[in-house]
Amino acid sequence: MYRVLAAILLSAATAFANDLPNKKYLDLPHIKIMVSAAEAKAKELNVSVTICIVDESGNLLFLEKGETASLNTIQFAQRKARHAAFYGRPSKDGADTIKKGNTEAMAFPEFFPNQGGLPIKIDGKILGGISASGSKSEIDEAIAQSGLDALLKQ
Amino acid sequence: MYRVLAAILLSAATAFANDLPNKKYLDLPHIKIMVSAAEAKAKELNVSVTICIVDESGNLLFLEKGETASLNTIQFAQRKARHAAFYGRPSKDGADTIKKGNTEAMAFPEFFPNQGGLPIKIDGKILGGISASGSKSEIDEAIAQSGLDALLKQ
Amino acid sequence: MYRVLAAILLSAATAFANDLPNKKYLDLPHIKIMVSAAEAKAKELNVSVTICIVDESGNLLFLEKGETASLNTIQFAQRKARHAAFYGRPSKDGADTIKKGNTEAMAFPEFFPNQGGLPIKIDGKILGGISASGSKSEIDEAIAQSGLDALLKQ
Amino acid sequence: MYRVLAAILLSAATAFANDLPNKKYLDLPHIKIMVSAAEAKAKELNVSVTICIVDESGNLLFLEKGETASLNTIQFAQRKARHAAFYGRPSKDGADTIKKGNTEAMAFPEFFPNQGGLPIKIDGKILGGISASGSKSEIDEAIAQSGLDALLKQ
Repeated sequence: MYRVLAAILLSAATAFANDLPNKKYLDLPHIKIMVSAAEAKAKELNVSVTICIVDESGNLLFLEKGETASLNTIQFAQRKARHAAFYGRPSKDGADTIKKGNTEAMAFPEFFPNQGGLPIKIDGKILGGISASGSKSEIDEAIAQSGLDALLKQ
Repeated sequence: MYRVLAAILLSAATAFANDLPNKKYLDLPHIKIMVSAAEAKAKELNVSVTICIVDESGNLLFLEKGETASLNTIQFAQRKARHAAFYGRPSKDGADTIKKGNTEAMAFPEFFPNQGGLPIKIDGKILGGISASGSKSEIDEAIAQSGLDALLKQ
Repeated sequence: MYRVLAAILLSAATAFANDLPNKKYLDLPHIKIMVSAAEAKAKELNVSVTICIVDESGNLLFLEKGETASLNTIQFAQRKARHAAFYGRPSKDGADTIKKGNTEAMAFPEFFPNQGGLPIKIDGKILGGISASGSKSEIDEAIAQSGLDALLKQ
Repeated sequence: MYRVLAAILLSAATAFANDLPNKKYLDLPHIKIMVSAAEAKAKELNVSVTICIVDESGNLLFLEKGETASLNTIQFAQRKARHAAFYGRPSKDGADTIKKGNTEAMAFPEFFPNQGGLPIKIDGKILGGISASGSKSEIDEAIAQSGLDALLKQ
């Protein structure tokens, strides 16, 4: 009798815990595929860039400094990727926002106005951001896009 | 004789301590009423926002992340509320200040130029700030205003 | 012919994107149940505590300052919850670590050596941390535990 | 008729706003009296100290560097006063806590283990902290106590 009750309570507990919603997240195999695609694109374009991937909280999941990329790319890559993850928009939008005269955005948390970071979205939900830094901003973004394509369009 | 003197001195002491001025402050029951009203407004407008209330020193008294609000709303909500509490003005004024070209304000402490935070004033004295973040800025402010109305116009 | 190929590629793409792993996360309904249970326990014990819940990255999902809890509980509650989320262990372990003489831990990120914060784990995975601050550390932890029980043992 | 209703609603509003609790706070006249008493004590003891008063949130309400007090007293005085305000205990307790081997306290927010800061309490509620720095710790505390006595025992 008690066992039955216990079993019911347990299943109820399980049911409640299982009741929590789920969300996708970036695992290492997918991250490596994205990085490989970005590296291939950089090689194709004959540039050396720092590649970075962060999760939706801005946690650094991967960073690889480009062989001849300058040291400041280590910061630029992280900030571009975080902007993309925090705002769910390309970091280029940050640059455009300032160019349009909306200077107040400079005060926003994790806001970084430089092209080259892209949000990683699946089913409309932000999983993180990917970026490249070390070449011209348009090329940096094209490299980040290649990493994104490997995830979304393979 | 001495006792009388002692009694006089003591009463004087008491009088002096009691002489300190008083000020109202936000207690939990009122905070919950404000939050409930803000949540109701958000539900009515069918948006998910992070709601925040701080005291006049910027101490965080309450924060609740909106279910589908992005992670950056956690920072935005706190900064909007602190701006409102520190400057005694809606955080929209901060945005307007920058749009007018007074860029120097970007360097001011706790200054945050984004609509959605409102000062909590009673009898002309600042008790703190309330904010919402996660929807359009005007809607964020309308939700914060609903919380404020629950305190001021109930 | 091309459409067929496109369709195949698309389905492959979808397959690959869907391939990403899933993880549970704390949503607002469950957070409110945890908070209500913690508040009920605090009331039962006749103490006023600040209650805090963070996600696995330390992002603040909920904070409510206890009515008569001192202002420092706002910081203590957040740090206890973050320690629990970051290390997947009760913040009491942090205190024990130092008492054992492992002072070096004082330098660890988000390490906070004070009882009252507990990790929120489901199926062995950390979803975040819950804490209470304002009473004796053992009571703070008991209140956090009540919030946790509401999630795990309901 | 409508006016009557309006009047009722208004009075209800007022009632609700007035419903907020009150707390005493330190005003400038009382602060000046505390400082004068502390300065008198320092002169009597023939020492030069930095005197500091903060509110319960740690906001700096008054600071006066002693004529020959070293520059580091500017930081010491503020930290002693904040410890006292945050923990509602003399900053000497902080020093004793560490001496007893509870090293973990070094990680606590605003914790400062050095004698010379005292909490300002009225009716059991913390209004802030007062401190002195520049002489021996016991003398620093005696000077802070004189400032406190001027408020509590006049």
